[in-house]
Amino acid sequence: MTTTTSDQRTDLRPLFEPQSIALIGATDKSMWSLNTFLNIQGSDFTGRTYLVNPRTPEVHGEKTYQSIADLPEVVDLVFVMVPTGAVLGTLKEAVAAGTRAAVVLTSGFGEVGEEGKRLEQEIVDFAEESGLALLGPNGNGFINAAKGITPYGLPIGRPLITGNVGFVLQSGALASAVLGFAQSRNIGISFLTAMGNEAVLSVTDVMQYLIDSPETDVIALFLESVRDTEEFRRIAKKALLAGKPIVALKVGRSELGAQAALAHTGALVGDNAVNSAAFDQMGVARVTSVEDLIVTAGLFASVGSLPGNRMGVVTPSGGASEVIADRSQDEGIELPPFGPETIEALSEIVPSFGTPQNPLDVTGYVVIDRTLTRRALEVVAKDPGIDFAILNMELPKVEGPDHAGTVENFKASADAIKALSKPAMVIGTALTDITEYGRRLQAESGYPYVLGGIDRGIHAIGRVIAWSERHRAALAAEADAVEAAPIEVEGATGMWTEHQAAQFLADNGVAVVPSRLAKTAEEAIAAAEEYGYPVVVKAVADGLGHKSDIGGVRLNLMDADDVRNAHDQIVEALEGLGSTGIQTIVQPQRSADGVELIVGVVRDPAWGLTLAVGLGGIWVEIMKDAALRVLPTTQDEIKKAITSLRAYPLLQGARGTKPVDIDALASEVAKIADVAYRLGDRLEALEINPLRAAADGNEALDALITWAE
Amino acid sequence: MTTTTSDQRTDLRPLFEPQSIALIGATDKSMWSLNTFLNIQGSDFTGRTYLVNPRTPEVHGEKTYQSIADLPEVVDLVFVMVPTGAVLGTLKEAVAAGTRAAVVLTSGFGEVGEEGKRLEQEIVDFAEESGLALLGPNGNGFINAAKGITPYGLPIGRPLITGNVGFVLQSGALASAVLGFAQSRNIGISFLTAMGNEAVLSVTDVMQYLIDSPETDVIALFLESVRDTEEFRRIAKKALLAGKPIVALKVGRSELGAQAALAHTGALVGDNAVNSAAFDQMGVARVTSVEDLIVTAGLFASVGSLPGNRMGVVTPSGGASEVIADRSQDEGIELPPFGPETIEALSEIVPSFGTPQNPLDVTGYVVIDRTLTRRALEVVAKDPGIDFAILNMELPKVEGPDHAGTVENFKASADAIKALSKPAMVIGTALTDITEYGRRLQAESGYPYVLGGIDRGIHAIGRVIAWSERHRAALAAEADAVEAAPIEVEGATGMWTEHQAAQFLADNGVAVVPSRLAKTAEEAIAAAEEYGYPVVVKAVADGLGHKSDIGGVRLNLMDADDVRNAHDQIVEALEGLGSTGIQTIVQPQRSADGVELIVGVVRDPAWGLTLAVGLGGIWVEIMKDAALRVLPTTQDEIKKAITSLRAYPLLQGARGTKPVDIDALASEVAKIADVAYRLGDRLEALEINPLRAAADGNEALDALITWAE
Repeated sequence: MTTTTSDQRTDLRPLFEPQSIALIGATDKSMWSLNTFLNIQGSDFTGRTYLVNPRTPEVHGEKTYQSIADLPEVVDLVFVMVPTGAVLGTLKEAVAAGTRAAVVLTSGFGEVGEEGKRLEQEIVDFAEESGLALLGPNGNGFINAAKGITPYGLPIGRPLITGNVGFVLQSGALASAVLGFAQSRNIGISFLTAMGNEAVLSVTDVMQYLIDSPETDVIALFLESVRDTEEFRRIAKKALLAGKPIVALKVGRSELGAQAALAHTGALVGDNAVNSAAFDQMGVARVTSVEDLIVTAGLFASVGSLPGNRMGVVTPSGGASEVIADRSQDEGIELPPFGPETIEALSEIVPSFGTPQNPLDVTGYVVIDRTLTRRALEVVAKDPGIDFAILNMELPKVEGPDHAGTVENFKASADAIKALSKPAMVIGTALTDITEYGRRLQAESGYPYVLGGIDRGIHAIGRVIAWSERHRAALAAEADAVEAAPIEVEGATGMWTEHQAAQFLADNGVAVVPSRLAKTAEEAIAAAEEYGYPVVVKAVADGLGHKSDIGGVRLNLMDADDVRNAHDQIVEALEGLGSTGIQTIVQPQRSADGVELIVGVVRDPAWGLTLAVGLGGIWVEIMKDAALRVLPTTQDEIKKAITSLRAYPLLQGARGTKPVDIDALASEVAKIADVAYRLGDRLEALEINPLRAAADGNEALDALITWAE
Repeated sequence: MTTTTSDQRTDLRPLFEPQSIALIGATDKSMWSLNTFLNIQGSDFTGRTYLVNPRTPEVHGEKTYQSIADLPEVVDLVFVMVPTGAVLGTLKEAVAAGTRAAVVLTSGFGEVGEEGKRLEQEIVDFAEESGLALLGPNGNGFINAAKGITPYGLPIGRPLITGNVGFVLQSGALASAVLGFAQSRNIGISFLTAMGNEAVLSVTDVMQYLIDSPETDVIALFLESVRDTEEFRRIAKKALLAGKPIVALKVGRSELGAQAALAHTGALVGDNAVNSAAFDQMGVARVTSVEDLIVTAGLFASVGSLPGNRMGVVTPSGGASEVIADRSQDEGIELPPFGPETIEALSEIVPSFGTPQNPLDVTGYVVIDRTLTRRALEVVAKDPGIDFAILNMELPKVEGPDHAGTVENFKASADAIKALSKPAMVIGTALTDITEYGRRLQAESGYPYVLGGIDRGIHAIGRVIAWSERHRAALAAEADAVEAAPIEVEGATGMWTEHQAAQFLADNGVAVVPSRLAKTAEEAIAAAEEYGYPVVVKAVADGLGHKSDIGGVRLNLMDADDVRNAHDQIVEALEGLGSTGIQTIVQPQRSADGVELIVGVVRDPAWGLTLAVGLGGIWVEIMKDAALRVLPTTQDEIKKAITSLRAYPLLQGARGTKPVDIDALASEVAKIADVAYRLGDRLEALEINPLRAAADGNEALDALITWAE
């Protein structure tokens, strides 16, 4: 598994937009071969297709060629279905003939054990040497719907609806469910591929192609694992800045899911919480079902972005209005009360038995007056307190007695929606198919995308709101982005405990409680006298991690005698343990008010340095109440992390303490995160425990740094 | 809004199973009238239908009658669509003619304000006087699919699939979405009604009818509010014991949802958490979407119950297996590893590129060998470690080239599933319609219910597992149920603070820390000497609730001087406040280890006395970490409540304390709950704060009882 170079990356058009394709190993005995042939034949492909089979003069009713060398032209793409052992030879023939791109459907490679891995490495090595763009092996091929090119080995349900969503899947078997579900929502696709083993080209390469492709506005992913997280972040950032949302169904949330993925692809599945944090930061909308993946991608494809989270609702059903209200709360979508002008205008429109409130139930009277909902929608969209509106309406499944009237009615609604000054979306009540008639009606009336059911639809709206915020923030941040300068550090090996770590952080601008090392009781007392009482005395010794286990932390020392006793007892205890490098540290004692946080940076095997913030004690130990951010991150992000903690009310003074200044706290944590990020590969882990957060300031009271081997 | 008497309840057959129906106020001008007429005409109804309209001789192409009195027979049911002001007169005519049942579609009653409420009360009074079974007003009518009787005012999408799920809806507008979605899942219904205003007959009356109806096995509800919780509980228990699961989409989870419901029906919406607890205890499967309501009801209707939560999975898709694993973890469904015999047997069946593990991916090889999945399923179902199995398989949407072969293949799978010794269910990957062809294939092959997508399907399986446990527990508990004897109590008014409340609880078998009242310091010291030091001294005064606010709780008093000081200072402080009834209480000081719980019983406006258990301090204040159980409840339930707390690890000794005996703790809390329940209507609230839970025992340290006015 390797990643391609930038040069190769720019050269995927021979692969995905070929003008000529040769199916190598085409045979009537293989469903794969037949499917691929029929898919190409049934498409708008205007290029040439050749079949290669050395043994049979005719396959799928067409003339065959004996070999690649016999073909009448140098084809752009070879589509390889020969037996496992013959793949490498076929690729060599193709390259020798001048072909630069290959899809390998054949399986039996990295996914089946050591011998397969060896064979796979051979084709990887050859592809890299020769600059061959290779998709697979063990894939399905691809569907370039935008260009009408469909060398794809499984049946494609007709009609193939063309649109602006590009799909990249790390599961071939799921592709059919994806295609079927997208069709049932009348969501058009620009592109789809199942990656196979990703031996040469990887998900990020295809994402890059889709970002560059004007036909694709939204990228939908099924991911078992992110193989190159750095590249993924680079591409995701590019997509975010380009305004092309990414929606990802990332499996491996459960331990068992991770195990299933391991068995299936041999890929590493990272820790789920870090994955979620990373996706969130990148603006990738993470979802947990195929339905959410596609309903959400479809919404992005039709609405783009949303200006805020305040929603106005128009529905003909009281029951639906209640389900919408419940689900909106789950997703953090506000349903603000309508303003007085809206209420007045609605009172003119809504019949007496309705109530002009948000969500607005215009009642079953719509059966009699079909204009009711759209007139209400126009009023609601004008309300200054809302950012966007939704209209709860169903597409008919079959043609009724008055098709022309139905088209007229839907067209009037569609026109009304288009004329609004704010985004408006249509949402069905329950998730049932948009049928052939529904698609026809949408086409004839210009009717917009219909969200599939309140349940998944409101969820999708929540994802679009979150992405829109990320998108705006990314555009704003891009303007004043600066490169972080690496921090130079000497002797960065092993573990640095308290004094050394604290000093290092303080030198780099982090607020740390003052401290002084003392070799003797007199030195300790001198330090205490300078700081003023009370003070803290702590043990220092080579390799001493957990000081409190040996009674090595003495708090609230009130005078010189206290300090002397503490120092002497600690030294005695350490000597008793045979420690070396024995000293103590003296610090001023901070007051007991305030809240103690843990601020840690650890190295995640997939995503690299990751910041964790939480409150100390039970909050982290029992509640696992920590918020994560992959580095680098920003003060704004850190503030969001802190306010997302369940224990956040404690920082706001819930237990009678003075509220902590959250901006100041976030700024302090951001300094720590910045130092950690600038240490880069040299840092293994860094922990501030505790960071005292209080109304009078925020300060690290203890620190630990572990350097990378 | 009243409830009917038991006599009326048994008499809903004239209403729901009439042999003759008169549509009163039938007119060509009304869609409602036309729909109802066409629905009856298009059904299997073998009885007589009459149209009544005094002004038009012919409506909907049929002869009309001038009045009810003119009808050639006494009809079983009048279906009333006359103007609001004429409804009462119509009902009187019908009763005078001998009719005993009415559906009122007409609106303009309780849902539109004071005048409407008055009109509604008139028809309620008349119905009660005359014993008329009345559904509505402001309803849609009903669909008795089991009997082929469909006096229903909205269009019914054809075909109407008949089956064993009965729907009762508190929203007329949602009925169409329910019917449409059920059809899309090929789920047959026995009965459906939208209740309207529930002026006379209520949801529970219809539920009772469905429990008694042999054609209904599952009851699906859309609820805005439960109007008579006691009756609902009675009916729900009956359904649970009868093995007829209830699935409920209860709205009003959000504050805003509650507000929407208020505007819509004028019904009270109870507190969401108490509702959830009550539903859970009753074995009612609460869901949050129309899709879940119907997918879950359909699963109950097809599989009944499940013996446990250990699932075996067979799928042809690695991607699907990972989504299944993730969603199963969310729902608490176990996917145990297969036993060695299963693995060995699977190794014979699954091609080399699959891995014989749970979930089992039999790979895309199924395209070549159609028998693969069912042979694998047979092996998996035999594994002793699993309780049931699921097969991930799709129904085709349209007819392929080989219909007979397809039927044969599906029939073979269906037969294999039926022959298994354990339940097995079929689950699709994504939620798309079962089309007309899919329904035909299911009918022709005897193919079982297909769960609509992994996402909602796994959720439904989780609900069935939970219900099955409740069902088994209810059957077991029924055998040894005893009636709780009321507790007599004198002078039960106002608030009883510590000593009085504690004494009362102790007298009724609750473990309470010993205590003695002291009017003088000498009495306090005498008590302390008897208990032994250290002791606690607390303030007592008339109406004194929060003692700690005035320094009225003195802990860890070590000798007689300490006790005297504490007593005198408390008395002085209370005198300074002008308190009356001033005393102190002396108690032995309990050791600081252990965990402090709050055990409270409050009166929920909807569900009555409700037990809340949580840990003290931040756990309840900040985390809202409490578990609720509506009374009466059992020790088992209370144990479940305690173990469901997020803070539960603290009781298990997570912070270094000795683990608490959870059975003993649950038993102690159960005693408190029992006393509260037996106090019944007299009790307003009871709070034990804290209840000290420790390895050496569980004991109330303080108590407060508020009596009902």
